[in-house]
Amino acid sequence: MSDKITVMWGSGSPPCWRVLIALEEKNVRDYNSVQLSFEKMDHKSQQVLDINPRGQLPAFKIGNLAVNESYGACLFLEKKFQSQGNRLIPDCINEEGHMNQRMFEGQTLTQKMADVIYYNWKVPEGERHDSAVKRNRETLAAELKLWEGYLQKGPGPFLAGKHFTLADVTVYPAIAYLFRFGLCEERYPKLAAYYNSLKDRPSIKTTWPPTWLETPQGSDLLKDL
Amino acid sequence: MSDKITVMWGSGSPPCWRVLIALEEKNVRDYNSVQLSFEKMDHKSQQVLDINPRGQLPAFKIGNLAVNESYGACLFLEKKFQSQGNRLIPDCINEEGHMNQRMFEGQTLTQKMADVIYYNWKVPEGERHDSAVKRNRETLAAELKLWEGYLQKGPGPFLAGKHFTLADVTVYPAIAYLFRFGLCEERYPKLAAYYNSLKDRPSIKTTWPPTWLETPQGSDLLKDL
Repeated sequence: MSDKITVMWGSGSPPCWRVLIALEEKNVRDYNSVQLSFEKMDHKSQQVLDINPRGQLPAFKIGNLAVNESYGACLFLEKKFQSQGNRLIPDCINEEGHMNQRMFEGQTLTQKMADVIYYNWKVPEGERHDSAVKRNRETLAAELKLWEGYLQKGPGPFLAGKHFTLADVTVYPAIAYLFRFGLCEERYPKLAAYYNSLKDRPSIKTTWPPTWLETPQGSDLLKDL
Repeated sequence: MSDKITVMWGSGSPPCWRVLIALEEKNVRDYNSVQLSFEKMDHKSQQVLDINPRGQLPAFKIGNLAVNESYGACLFLEKKFQSQGNRLIPDCINEEGHMNQRMFEGQTLTQKMADVIYYNWKVPEGERHDSAVKRNRETLAAELKLWEGYLQKGPGPFLAGKHFTLADVTVYPAIAYLFRFGLCEERYPKLAAYYNSLKDRPSIKTTWPPTWLETPQGSDLLKDL
């Protein structure tokens, strides 16, 4: 029981979703799954702070070890359960290097997305500027064109090539989030095809954000991007 | 020759420095090292864009593979040269998990540091607010207290415990950067001790930012933090 896993997570949050997908891919199902609410500020509750002193979700614990950083948890799960479930790192070292490149570029994508979607939440009222909102949106649009180009050039069908890898585990939730916030499928056809093609993958379908299932209609914040 | 490595880098930049340290630790010395200048906007030059379309440093290429993301490059180098130089990932999977946690928390530290140091560079003049400057500084100070606490609690002497790991490769450059910008050694004694204890480690000494050697006096931006 010393390796008992606890994951505290919030619905829709890309960092949380990454970890849930990784667990599914590695066939790890015997864990203590605790869904919490950001709206209710559960992420600042003592049970979270005990695992993650930053008061953020996910809070991930295995035995006495906390690995709350989602990229760290995904890498850890792949190594810990190396011979279980699906391999998430390619055998070829060069493919792994390319996976690393896409996986960590995904952090920039996620950051630029957050700068747009959470602007009002992150920036106090007296410090907001239309010029910043405009620039953030342009920056995100340029970022999305990069990714559209990556998928265009291929080889695909996954983000780092022929295999579903940690690049997909870590970046798919951000891409799904973009479409949840109204990204136009016609304007980003390759991203949309990628997004739709993975919706039914068991690890993704099983972990689909429950609040998105309850309220199928998302926001249209990004529809003109 | 297909695995010839090229690294384009700028002096002092934590992402660049990480990769240079990793190369030294792995005993990889036969590479094409190209020092470029951010001031001269070399990072937007064609030779960089050919490897890194984001126009950022480092630009890292091995054979035909580009791994520009510094965390990705460090992980790649450790795997590619697994049996060469120093092992940068602990043998014990739980120690590796803890290393992952610190390594990825280092990205938050680096981000909060950049929010303070590069405020005027990142935020256009008409959008700057004293309240944001103050908040960013408080946020960085709180972050530094976390790290001071990690080193206090130990086990140390390294960031993830007894061994020098990728956590040190990736986070040390940010910590050195903080002191270069005037962080007070008396106020953060554990961070200062860690910083000073590694200055003479060969991989770090050899790759010490040349512009810092030329101009030993840094900034005092963080002296009151």
